[in-house]
Amino acid sequence: MSKTCIGLDVLGGDHAPQTILEGALLTVDPSTESPLPPERIVLFGDEAAIESSLNNLGGNPGFIISHAPEAIGMEEKPAQALRAKRKSSISLGTKAVRVGETGAFVSMGNTGAVVGASTLMLGTLPGVRRPGIAVTQHLVGRPVTVLDMGANTAPKPEDLLAYGVMGDILQRDCMGVDSPRVGLLNIGEEESKGTELLQLAYPLLKGSGLNFLGNVEGGDIFRDHVDVILTDGFTGNVVLKLMEGMASFMMKRLVDELKKQGVPIDPALLGGLARSIDSSEYGGALLLGVDGVVIIGHGSSDSRAVKNALQLAAKGLDTHVNQDIVSGLQTAGAITPE
Amino acid sequence: MSKTCIGLDVLGGDHAPQTILEGALLTVDPSTESPLPPERIVLFGDEAAIESSLNNLGGNPGFIISHAPEAIGMEEKPAQALRAKRKSSISLGTKAVRVGETGAFVSMGNTGAVVGASTLMLGTLPGVRRPGIAVTQHLVGRPVTVLDMGANTAPKPEDLLAYGVMGDILQRDCMGVDSPRVGLLNIGEEESKGTELLQLAYPLLKGSGLNFLGNVEGGDIFRDHVDVILTDGFTGNVVLKLMEGMASFMMKRLVDELKKQGVPIDPALLGGLARSIDSSEYGGALLLGVDGVVIIGHGSSDSRAVKNALQLAAKGLDTHVNQDIVSGLQTAGAITPE
Repeated sequence: MSKTCIGLDVLGGDHAPQTILEGALLTVDPSTESPLPPERIVLFGDEAAIESSLNNLGGNPGFIISHAPEAIGMEEKPAQALRAKRKSSISLGTKAVRVGETGAFVSMGNTGAVVGASTLMLGTLPGVRRPGIAVTQHLVGRPVTVLDMGANTAPKPEDLLAYGVMGDILQRDCMGVDSPRVGLLNIGEEESKGTELLQLAYPLLKGSGLNFLGNVEGGDIFRDHVDVILTDGFTGNVVLKLMEGMASFMMKRLVDELKKQGVPIDPALLGGLARSIDSSEYGGALLLGVDGVVIIGHGSSDSRAVKNALQLAAKGLDTHVNQDIVSGLQTAGAITPE
Repeated sequence: MSKTCIGLDVLGGDHAPQTILEGALLTVDPSTESPLPPERIVLFGDEAAIESSLNNLGGNPGFIISHAPEAIGMEEKPAQALRAKRKSSISLGTKAVRVGETGAFVSMGNTGAVVGASTLMLGTLPGVRRPGIAVTQHLVGRPVTVLDMGANTAPKPEDLLAYGVMGDILQRDCMGVDSPRVGLLNIGEEESKGTELLQLAYPLLKGSGLNFLGNVEGGDIFRDHVDVILTDGFTGNVVLKLMEGMASFMMKRLVDELKKQGVPIDPALLGGLARSIDSSEYGGALLLGVDGVVIIGHGSSDSRAVKNALQLAAKGLDTHVNQDIVSGLQTAGAITPE
């Protein structure tokens, strides 16, 4: 094992362990675009169960298995579960990052537990007060990153500056965007709009050297106007859940409407639309600001989402996203160089 | 003129005055469901222009015309515009409510100017510290009201209690819902979740006698789970603009997708879906908590939206929604009875 390895939580998510293992196999499949070498993937879960499942799926192509006998359920209270289950896949997968056995950890499990374990065990990068969850969607033909999606519900203006830098680096390093446009999620364009937090964060971002557009609005997530949208974790989480609810509502209504109109529905008919609003397309959210690459996927992730999350983790490690974040924070004036 | 009359801003909105007048005519058309008598509608705008437009549309069926020579543009700064244009349709339409010439005012114009004029000239109802904007949508086969949608970006816990009472009364009086379920927009179910504001508002709502469900999430707007969703005006406005952006994004993507798949698109094909997410269906938002019935419509409103807004205003007047709000606030403990 080494710092280029990626830990994978085999016990997390609604369809664990089967879908998680299928995702890992997909990631190393030679027919996949940029497959990863199997020895970069470390599976955290019950060793015997993993081996037997892999045998049923055609054998272990070379994954490393790290025994973690306990699972933290999706509905368990994070702090309590982490205290009670020291040998959970989340605890041991995070610990492996701390001790340098791996460089990244991917989990489709209990979000609160992953955020808690990472914050406590890995600590934050220099210049980061609180980590933020970054979700990148590909709705408008290019990636749009929104952060924070729920790690920090009461940020300070400096946190939003740090999120701006982290989102900028994420877009450059992992999405290949040259000069990402950064916007502050607000309810009007003028600098004086919105909450006190936003009024104080605006000048910090303006003076940061980032390609700061100023304020943007909710609808801009659906336009090619901005690459990184900054918000507090409360608003971000409301937005995320609203988008999920609205997407499935509209798809359902649409299918009903087409049926009513007698339009024959080919299952693949709505594939393009479904894919564009589908969370498996982006794989997982990055927990930015902790000292390690941590990716939290949706509990309902399918094998494609697991593969995309593993590939995002590899990209984060290979581009040294965290080193770049630390330099970026210095340049933006968020931390004083030593 | 009397307190049962409804003022209509003929100069407000993207398609004024034509669409506004068409909406007024639709409202009194005998073939409309529950048509209003024309003498209940007072048109605020340039008298000569209104008369000439009505002549082109077949004559004035009996509307009262109140001369207001100045228009406040959609992009003008509200406070400044209200000071400079004392004879604007928004100023005079609001003033008519204050002096009892009308009981209600409907405008598709500059939202900030309508909120500003109403708050300053009408004042708030006893027990209301700050008005809130209530938007009611009919997405799930029944009306769901969300407030505040942007009048008050930094509410206190007591404001959320008042919004709960106002939303409850709105649903009972204007939507015919018997025991509306009230929820607090949050990012998790537990009472301890979310911002300090929400943590403080929760027990107030729990002890209010309202049918309080506790916390709800963004996705619940699209489920038959809650009738009134309470939020601060910042989050509410982000949500409103996100929903608008997402709806038009998805409709556009859908049409593109169907075209690509070679599915013949009947213009009426998506009518049902478009209508269900269309703001003209709900007509306008109520500015609740001011001493008068004030409705703010979308600038892009069509004649149907204008009609729905006028009918909502009539409903508010006929059911004495504001009297019921004042009693409701007393019952909920938001104000001490004299």
